[in-house]
Amino acid sequence: MKLPLLAALLAALPTLAQTPKPVENLVQYAHPIVGTQRMGHTFPGATVPFGMVQLSPDTDTISYELNGKYNPKVYEYCAGYQYEDKTIVGFSHTHFSGTGHSDLGDFLIMPTTGPLQLNPGTADKPQSGFRSAFSHQNEVAEPAYYRVKLDDHNILAELTATNRVGLHQYTFPKADDAHIILDLTAGIYNYPDKNVWTFVRVENDSLVTGYRQTHGWARTRTEYFALQFSKPFRQYGARNYAKKQAYRGFWGRFDQAHNFPEQAGEQLRLYFDFKTEAGEKIKLKMALSGVSTEGALRNLRAELPGWNFEQTKRQGQAQWQQELSKVTIQSPKRVDKDNFYTALYHAFLSPTTYQDVDGQYRGLDQNIHRAEGFTNYTTFSLWDTYRALHPLFNVLQPQRNADMIQSMLAHYQQSAEHMLPVWSHHANENWCMIGYHSVPVLADAIIKGNAPFDANKALDACVTTARQQWYDGLGDYLRLGYVPEDKSGSSVSKTLEYAYDDWCIAQAAKKLGRPDIEQEFSKRALNWQNMYDQRIGFMRPRLSDGSFRKEFDVLSTHNQGFIEGNAWNYSLYVPQDPAALIAKMGGNARFTEHLDSLFTMHLPDKFFAETEDITRDGIIGNYVHGNEPAHHAAYLYNWTDQPWKTQARVRMILPKMYRPTPDGLGGNDDCGQMSAWYIFSALGFYPVAPGSPEYALGSPAIHGATLRLSTGNTFRITVKNQSDKNVYVKEARLNGQKLTRPFLNHQDIMNGGELVFVMAGKL
Amino acid sequence: MKLPLLAALLAALPTLAQTPKPVENLVQYAHPIVGTQRMGHTFPGATVPFGMVQLSPDTDTISYELNGKYNPKVYEYCAGYQYEDKTIVGFSHTHFSGTGHSDLGDFLIMPTTGPLQLNPGTADKPQSGFRSAFSHQNEVAEPAYYRVKLDDHNILAELTATNRVGLHQYTFPKADDAHIILDLTAGIYNYPDKNVWTFVRVENDSLVTGYRQTHGWARTRTEYFALQFSKPFRQYGARNYAKKQAYRGFWGRFDQAHNFPEQAGEQLRLYFDFKTEAGEKIKLKMALSGVSTEGALRNLRAELPGWNFEQTKRQGQAQWQQELSKVTIQSPKRVDKDNFYTALYHAFLSPTTYQDVDGQYRGLDQNIHRAEGFTNYTTFSLWDTYRALHPLFNVLQPQRNADMIQSMLAHYQQSAEHMLPVWSHHANENWCMIGYHSVPVLADAIIKGNAPFDANKALDACVTTARQQWYDGLGDYLRLGYVPEDKSGSSVSKTLEYAYDDWCIAQAAKKLGRPDIEQEFSKRALNWQNMYDQRIGFMRPRLSDGSFRKEFDVLSTHNQGFIEGNAWNYSLYVPQDPAALIAKMGGNARFTEHLDSLFTMHLPDKFFAETEDITRDGIIGNYVHGNEPAHHAAYLYNWTDQPWKTQARVRMILPKMYRPTPDGLGGNDDCGQMSAWYIFSALGFYPVAPGSPEYALGSPAIHGATLRLSTGNTFRITVKNQSDKNVYVKEARLNGQKLTRPFLNHQDIMNGGELVFVMAGKL
Repeated sequence: MKLPLLAALLAALPTLAQTPKPVENLVQYAHPIVGTQRMGHTFPGATVPFGMVQLSPDTDTISYELNGKYNPKVYEYCAGYQYEDKTIVGFSHTHFSGTGHSDLGDFLIMPTTGPLQLNPGTADKPQSGFRSAFSHQNEVAEPAYYRVKLDDHNILAELTATNRVGLHQYTFPKADDAHIILDLTAGIYNYPDKNVWTFVRVENDSLVTGYRQTHGWARTRTEYFALQFSKPFRQYGARNYAKKQAYRGFWGRFDQAHNFPEQAGEQLRLYFDFKTEAGEKIKLKMALSGVSTEGALRNLRAELPGWNFEQTKRQGQAQWQQELSKVTIQSPKRVDKDNFYTALYHAFLSPTTYQDVDGQYRGLDQNIHRAEGFTNYTTFSLWDTYRALHPLFNVLQPQRNADMIQSMLAHYQQSAEHMLPVWSHHANENWCMIGYHSVPVLADAIIKGNAPFDANKALDACVTTARQQWYDGLGDYLRLGYVPEDKSGSSVSKTLEYAYDDWCIAQAAKKLGRPDIEQEFSKRALNWQNMYDQRIGFMRPRLSDGSFRKEFDVLSTHNQGFIEGNAWNYSLYVPQDPAALIAKMGGNARFTEHLDSLFTMHLPDKFFAETEDITRDGIIGNYVHGNEPAHHAAYLYNWTDQPWKTQARVRMILPKMYRPTPDGLGGNDDCGQMSAWYIFSALGFYPVAPGSPEYALGSPAIHGATLRLSTGNTFRITVKNQSDKNVYVKEARLNGQKLTRPFLNHQDIMNGGELVFVMAGKL
Repeated sequence: MKLPLLAALLAALPTLAQTPKPVENLVQYAHPIVGTQRMGHTFPGATVPFGMVQLSPDTDTISYELNGKYNPKVYEYCAGYQYEDKTIVGFSHTHFSGTGHSDLGDFLIMPTTGPLQLNPGTADKPQSGFRSAFSHQNEVAEPAYYRVKLDDHNILAELTATNRVGLHQYTFPKADDAHIILDLTAGIYNYPDKNVWTFVRVENDSLVTGYRQTHGWARTRTEYFALQFSKPFRQYGARNYAKKQAYRGFWGRFDQAHNFPEQAGEQLRLYFDFKTEAGEKIKLKMALSGVSTEGALRNLRAELPGWNFEQTKRQGQAQWQQELSKVTIQSPKRVDKDNFYTALYHAFLSPTTYQDVDGQYRGLDQNIHRAEGFTNYTTFSLWDTYRALHPLFNVLQPQRNADMIQSMLAHYQQSAEHMLPVWSHHANENWCMIGYHSVPVLADAIIKGNAPFDANKALDACVTTARQQWYDGLGDYLRLGYVPEDKSGSSVSKTLEYAYDDWCIAQAAKKLGRPDIEQEFSKRALNWQNMYDQRIGFMRPRLSDGSFRKEFDVLSTHNQGFIEGNAWNYSLYVPQDPAALIAKMGGNARFTEHLDSLFTMHLPDKFFAETEDITRDGIIGNYVHGNEPAHHAAYLYNWTDQPWKTQARVRMILPKMYRPTPDGLGGNDDCGQMSAWYIFSALGFYPVAPGSPEYALGSPAIHGATLRLSTGNTFRITVKNQSDKNVYVKEARLNGQKLTRPFLNHQDIMNGGELVFVMAGKL
């Protein structure tokens, strides 16, 4: 019997390794407040990893339109919160992290005292409404915990959350007129008439259910809630601010504004009244569901049957500790840990859980489905996240990444267009940005052996998606080998990204032994060449007749055939074959010159003004780190004879673009893509072309790291002679073997082992 | 073995009796066209008994508002069709029968030829849009079948239906440009912005799914559909006429108007294009569901997997034959059969089925429920139908009536207000009209022994409903014994009806042995007395201070304390105790004088103008048969010494108010209440006070009838010496026993037997 016992012990070892006892509280280094100032578009509130609920303060709810025109200020409020604001309008339960358009902000709750005010008031006169002044001195934002003092009402607000339930704890002063407002008119990116319908039922003296249906970035979205109060309200009421109120005839027979338990309309605000003693805590549990109020109630009862705020917070932070401890880093500098774990925190916010505890979720067809054998996720900002976030998940969150892919395949199954998601959230496709970048996510997982799903069906979905002739210039792309600018704007970006996506399909087909598909898409993958204008050395838009467009500015991003990037940046976008690009661009020297100039040139202000989504800090020369198209660019030196420049650039970008301060992000975090770039780069490698098993080596910014993989293996990164100045990698050794090329294979990480960087200050 | 065999044979006898071989085609006598002219508000289209689908032509879709004001013409189109109209805009799938407000008209389909027109055009210029001229000469309306020639398009349209599926058959001319329009902007009682949202998916080249969500009489209603074409469309497209279109940014990247399979918005019209040969038939199957498009598809596949139009029509008409043959009548006059079976047809249209084939349905809480052990129904026009329709169901449709009550109890369970339905349809309470007349429906079933449900729970629901202090003057009613007019309009009508409903609760409580409740509500049932002003001999509104209101007009219905009736009519509304009323009003002579005058007086035109819902024909003297409050009035003579006057009045009312012609109904059919009055009265008895097991005898209008009861028993009505002039009942014998009182007991009918009327032309 000894041998089996030993075998069992050995078998248990990986499991033990999988749940290590962390020596350090890593939650302390993750700062939700980072990125809340200016363009980061992150939110400071409470959420658990990949949670359905993001319970967070909104400092304003700005309408998308002002006097019938686009209101540019709406853009600042993509996550509901701007650090420089002085007032809070309330706490809502759903927020995107780092997006460049937005939505959500469901179910705004605000506790107040004094005479009932049902309008939010203005930021300059907070006392004109229910909003309150606050101060950052009285504010704490931690993973799964947020606290703020609401000065105008003398109420301490604390928030925490489980996956599907937000828990509020409000400490009131003594008050005969304490109120809790439930504002269903509020929302993020509030288009005129964004609210399609809202519906509320007061089920009893402490339970309220309902839903909010919106027409915004998600065209047809419904979010359901169940809201439980820890104390029965004394009375309640509602006001409907909508003009649309059909047939009032018999409804007017009796008072439906006060203590009437059923409300419906476009613009509802409700209030619930209490008497409170000094220091009395009233708690609220708000459970969400995409399915029904019944589903929300089920989620509430399953996830948070009790009222223990401290315990809920503790459990939420324990979840964060578990996720963050997948990587432990060494560094003598606090700022490195703050940056790293804040980035990891932001990377583990989305995609978000989108199913009830019983597995039911609302599908793209608006029917209710049940996720069988996977957890259904939503919030797929794929144009951003295919680059580094999903590759990061293939290392640190392989099971979740596979579930996300199953969710994307379910989307495909439910899609009337027979398309994988482009940018999808909450049972909707919002068609945001270009390409079909589900494809690299699926291909990357297949190539990297993280495909506990039907890989051939996934490939079929990729192929079907990539053959939709009606889609965004794709018909012309198939006929002509490029998207003609006179038919479809941003044509160069589209062509380049299609070509890369096509290459991904070819790689997956190759791996799965489907040569017909491999051949078809390998050929398509070369289409990037059709965009290159040899005469000027840049990618350049072409017209249907085959000619390059005459009017052309290589620095402008405005109507030049590109999107979120100019020709200077996008001309580098052939991640699937940098070597061929280098050859095309005239070889090492000319290519390196172009690449250098990207980081060093002076970009005139007028071009900056055109650049979307980023602050001035988000640009280095003409390199726009705040947008994604050049995220791989710094690593391209690895394909030249000057890989040391990659190392220098990366170490320059890292501290410039990531600081553990409210304004510490140089652009939208884009659902974690910016943060994933930080994590990979800080660790010393980066996935230039997801769909390839190779990472390009850069220059690690930390002193060492341990990756605890779900296989039970451990991958250790050791950095010798690390310092701010020692940015060059003199030598890299994998498991003792010196690396002769500045590349690392995915399997080498997943197998466990050690990567040693030996740093130097000079070449 | 002989004895059991004999027993089995005997046991089978009732079953044989239950499904008799009808000697006669009764469907031929039921004319859906009756009541489609002027105020009947019936629809001529295809439906099966109590079916979910009412597939019927709409001659116009009128907006509730015109230039910002109420458009009185909308009222004419409660059922979508007005006989005098010359054009049809299309065929929609849901219609109320005979209501006085309205809703529905979902999913208008119109086949056309020629250049595509996506607007309906105007009635005076049908060629300005997709609507078509038609002629009654080319129109056939039968139970479960409707046919019309669409002159402008040279298309023969035929419609039939199963319970949940409408089947269209369009015979086209040769056309290169044949279209089928799906108009989701159309609807009945179209308030401005009544459409809250519509959603459509083109699943493949012949299947379309979607839903329409409206804010109308039902505040929060969603109807789902699955639409299958027999022939693939060549191409399709959509146009969104709504102003509300948020975030178009990335949606505009590609053409979403043509052959794009997903559409959503407030105001959508779609078209599907075909080429047709001369005489080619294109068929459409439109399945409905209140649950989901998945539910609609399930209904489609379960109920109508094939395409056989003739068979579907045959099966639909067979269902009608089965229902109509529950009563066979004898009469030498065709008009009697036409009237009788048309009335029976109208009585068997609603309440309508409101659950999918798998038992799932949308509840009042907007969650999806499953009907366990009953069929869920909706469309409860209870202020109307408690009077005679539900009592009729207790005789002819006891199982359905019990299921309807189960549906009402489910509504109660789901009601945030803890109320039984007042007027409910499609998962909504519309609060229409007064009282809580679920109560008499429940009580009547309990009293009459048709309660295969938990009668005590039903009684509890009645009691809870009747104690809701916030409801429509009920708080004051409980405090003062009447509803004060200065607090709540129509106060006399409310008080009288509450008192009657309360009496019903007392009766049920008595039967169920719950004396506390019996006592409480027996006392409340006397509250009618508080409305009677002894000095003037009329019911009269009182104020909070106890005084009768000074300004008062016994003939006006306008702001006099009544609704759909004046004091002259409503003063007779004590159905629970006519004897006490007679005593209160000064005894036989004075009461009879009042009752006589009701039928004989001249009502000045100015009062008629105030009377809602009826044509001039709907009034006899001051007796308003077109409204319900006096429906029992003609039978009240039975409590005086002049019961022969009941017989004369009833025989006068019947031919005057019911004719088998389009304009044959003197007022709204009100979901079958008017028709149920006809059926009872034509058979010779009427339920003056549902909740009592007694019927008042009148004067049969037919020559004989056989009621085949679900128990297997047969109740035979034999009329001797019948003629138009022999309106008086000289003698009535039940099973050979002469009746000494002009009343009949429910159990005497259900036990089976024979009622013989011997008629005479003189007293």
